[in-house]
Amino acid sequence: MKTLFKNINVVDVFNHEIKECDVLIDNDRIISIGKIDEIENMVDCKGKYMYPSFIDTHLHFESSQLRPSEYLKLAIAYGTTAFIADPHEITNVCGEDGIKFIKEDIKDIPADIKIMMPSCVPATPLEYNKVKIDADETIRLTKKYDLYGLGEMMDIIGVLNDDKEVLKKIKYFKDNNMIVDGHAPLMSGIFLDKYILAGMYTDHEVFTKEEALERVSKGMTVQIRNGSAAKDVEKVIKAVNKDNISSFVFATDDKEPEELASKGTIIDAVKKAIKSGIDKIDAIKIASLNGYRTYKLEKRGAIAIGYYANFIIAPDLEFNKNLEVYYMGKLVAKDNVSLFEIKNASILNVTSTVNIKKIELEDLKFNFDKSKPVMEIIPGSLITKKIYCKDDKELNRMYSIERHHKTGLIGKCFVKGFNLKNGAIAQTISHDSHNIIALGNDEKDILDVINALKTDGGIAIKVDGKITYLELDIAGLMSSKPYAEVIKKRHELLEATHKLSMNNKINPLMLLSFLSLIVIPDIKLTCNGLYSIIERKYIE
Amino acid sequence: MKTLFKNINVVDVFNHEIKECDVLIDNDRIISIGKIDEIENMVDCKGKYMYPSFIDTHLHFESSQLRPSEYLKLAIAYGTTAFIADPHEITNVCGEDGIKFIKEDIKDIPADIKIMMPSCVPATPLEYNKVKIDADETIRLTKKYDLYGLGEMMDIIGVLNDDKEVLKKIKYFKDNNMIVDGHAPLMSGIFLDKYILAGMYTDHEVFTKEEALERVSKGMTVQIRNGSAAKDVEKVIKAVNKDNISSFVFATDDKEPEELASKGTIIDAVKKAIKSGIDKIDAIKIASLNGYRTYKLEKRGAIAIGYYANFIIAPDLEFNKNLEVYYMGKLVAKDNVSLFEIKNASILNVTSTVNIKKIELEDLKFNFDKSKPVMEIIPGSLITKKIYCKDDKELNRMYSIERHHKTGLIGKCFVKGFNLKNGAIAQTISHDSHNIIALGNDEKDILDVINALKTDGGIAIKVDGKITYLELDIAGLMSSKPYAEVIKKRHELLEATHKLSMNNKINPLMLLSFLSLIVIPDIKLTCNGLYSIIERKYIE
Repeated sequence: MKTLFKNINVVDVFNHEIKECDVLIDNDRIISIGKIDEIENMVDCKGKYMYPSFIDTHLHFESSQLRPSEYLKLAIAYGTTAFIADPHEITNVCGEDGIKFIKEDIKDIPADIKIMMPSCVPATPLEYNKVKIDADETIRLTKKYDLYGLGEMMDIIGVLNDDKEVLKKIKYFKDNNMIVDGHAPLMSGIFLDKYILAGMYTDHEVFTKEEALERVSKGMTVQIRNGSAAKDVEKVIKAVNKDNISSFVFATDDKEPEELASKGTIIDAVKKAIKSGIDKIDAIKIASLNGYRTYKLEKRGAIAIGYYANFIIAPDLEFNKNLEVYYMGKLVAKDNVSLFEIKNASILNVTSTVNIKKIELEDLKFNFDKSKPVMEIIPGSLITKKIYCKDDKELNRMYSIERHHKTGLIGKCFVKGFNLKNGAIAQTISHDSHNIIALGNDEKDILDVINALKTDGGIAIKVDGKITYLELDIAGLMSSKPYAEVIKKRHELLEATHKLSMNNKINPLMLLSFLSLIVIPDIKLTCNGLYSIIERKYIE
Repeated sequence: MKTLFKNINVVDVFNHEIKECDVLIDNDRIISIGKIDEIENMVDCKGKYMYPSFIDTHLHFESSQLRPSEYLKLAIAYGTTAFIADPHEITNVCGEDGIKFIKEDIKDIPADIKIMMPSCVPATPLEYNKVKIDADETIRLTKKYDLYGLGEMMDIIGVLNDDKEVLKKIKYFKDNNMIVDGHAPLMSGIFLDKYILAGMYTDHEVFTKEEALERVSKGMTVQIRNGSAAKDVEKVIKAVNKDNISSFVFATDDKEPEELASKGTIIDAVKKAIKSGIDKIDAIKIASLNGYRTYKLEKRGAIAIGYYANFIIAPDLEFNKNLEVYYMGKLVAKDNVSLFEIKNASILNVTSTVNIKKIELEDLKFNFDKSKPVMEIIPGSLITKKIYCKDDKELNRMYSIERHHKTGLIGKCFVKGFNLKNGAIAQTISHDSHNIIALGNDEKDILDVINALKTDGGIAIKVDGKITYLELDIAGLMSSKPYAEVIKKRHELLEATHKLSMNNKINPLMLLSFLSLIVIPDIKLTCNGLYSIIERKYIE
């Protein structure tokens, strides 16, 4: 069916112009632009603007604690209609079932959603996650689930050391002309050269103008990140100019659901870029054409002939409310509300993922020993230090409990810096193996929050004798509930954390989720105990 | 083997910068850029410049009258190392054998040479060329010879009328994500929209700034043409600015050998663009990165990590002499001389292509009849007019002789405008069927030049009783001889044409080659007689 959008201000990202004209679409494609004779099915758009809908070039659904379909409802409502998603977290927990679930949950969503094959499951050979995915299995899963490329290659050491399995994984994607995403925080010079040479196209771990310019100069596309934690737009956008703009795209990486619901995803990056001095059409170009081209999604990212009718109609170029979002010629969202029906995939194979031996109070007991190392956290940082303490004043107890294979393994240590005086926290979000991590003083309280997680997993806080529990029944990472319910429950959790007496510079749930990740120095707690990244060994 | 280019001014087409640094290559790839420790195999390049080698995005080897390997010797010597070639002419004469020959002749040349499948063989259903290549045959040949895309789609009428065969041809390439080149002279508005929608990516038939901007706005890549006849750079470059530059590339389409030998191909376009006011780095970008990206030749077109070591080292950015051209890390040309060995393909299956019945003097006789139409040519144009004359003063005799199938068909007419007083010309270059076209007054002279073409074909001129003959033993279009010999013989031909007493505003050989092409209005001479494009019928 043909529809004519009459007298609309078309944003031309090729010529960098805005021109009032008519746009004719036929089903899913734009078929004519210019002065076009009136037809029956016609919308007068006088005064309105039409620009291409956006692409989020790198994201993890899991970070939102929402299932993909709920995440997409919100993201599409704000004008993003293409997503390059790396199901790294759920794959660490559920293996193949995780990938299968993600593919099924997005199946009927009106958007271009490309799923990458997670490159590092587990993140390191020492992880106790669900499964090990080697190069052969990586290739098998990629073929079986029609995955789009290789997700961010975090095994930098493997790449720099020519690790055979790592290079074999990458080779498959290079040979098949598929994208391999990078992850190269703080790298430069010959190390960066070697990393790029191995096959990585993109990097979203870019924090400064200088880092951006070096990557661009060497042939990479820089993914300017607008995450909930990592807010890089204002700094990195300073690297962008008229000459190098085609080497930049936007990504979100990790988004919390409150931000998704209130600000959307890429549109918020567009606004920030403009606020930082970037021209409006250039901001749209970074958010659309550049991303679609980098990810080889043809005939998308511009209002042009033969292009898919994926666009936004808005009353102005302010990127606020009153957007109409079209995908394949169909109106899929209006006024920041998605209009499409969702058929949720079954969670049967990705739920009840907490598989632990029954824990007794006795299992959690351990005594302070001043000869043993203590983990010190640094507010505002994911880096930790190995220290020794004279006594256990100002220390908290922390546990990492293996939860995939019912091994009964429990790592224990004292941690300094939280200064938690009351209550306890336990959660199944603990990168990248997502074992249970628990924090507190009183072993009984700690046992209570661990038990509160049940077999589903999630986040539990005990304070003032009351337990607040956010059930994350998908892999212990995401909720199967509608986003509004999840946001409400997260609000209760937030209130509970406010009742905790502790160092208020810390977001304890976020920080705890990184204290098992033996990638960031120095010492981290796994279910096998404290591990030093610098010393490359367990240190108890 | 590793080579270090020390202290070289690297042209960074991504960031639009020139920076002195070191470039390390390992065999065929660039593996590091920056400050690099000295190694044994090192070249001090202090003061020199390094920039990516060029790509010619659309060309026909046949126009040079040189075989591909000889053409490439010259083009590579001037810094072009990638070629998108459409063997349209030889395929009209030799069919599959023509494609096979081209593929074999380029086999060992150090350059990226992609052969397109000619889209229109024959150009119109009325042509008496060697073979008809329908959609199925197009697909078969594309697969068999690993062709890269569909050559310029000249059948505009077929596209606009939804001709099934034409759309079926295009569909195969679209479905396989392969390039389909356009050819859309003077098109605009809804006709251009329909043409683009059908699948055409590019257009080299662009003559003005406005035409360029419309095509860019609608999603096309504009191929700025620097041919020997069509010199479009100065006009079209005016459309290019910092915002839309990535939608422009360079092409040559048709080059004469003298220009190839003295000016090269794309480098000459670069110089003209700069002379017209384009920034030097931007000109390099159009000539390299933009073209490689449009034609999906990955890891080429920039001095960047993991990119193929295809570059030019020059003493300055003047694009003159003293170039060193590297392809895959090897020096392939120096000081405008190619350094590689050529293994010529056998011409056995593409030679002796003139297959005519013996022609008697009697066959060429015909009388003037003032009731019959006469073709009038217009100096400086390919357009002709249908006129009637009172007498045959100022008229010449013209013939089109079928030469593929020995049918004995001879089209005859009088032509006005050459004012040829002495001598005769015959040639086997006659677009697109490449039958013999002959011009003169005296039937005996005309028979002599026709017979001079023998079974090989070529160009023959008789003047002052002497015949000068350029043998074009490959399809009657190209010579199997080295370029220097061809250029020398062409010089003799030129001297012979200077001895002809005729309208000196006309290049008779060039013009004759278009007087059978029943695509450009109005009347043309085929072996079946005079045909009117406007009336769509034979008019005798």
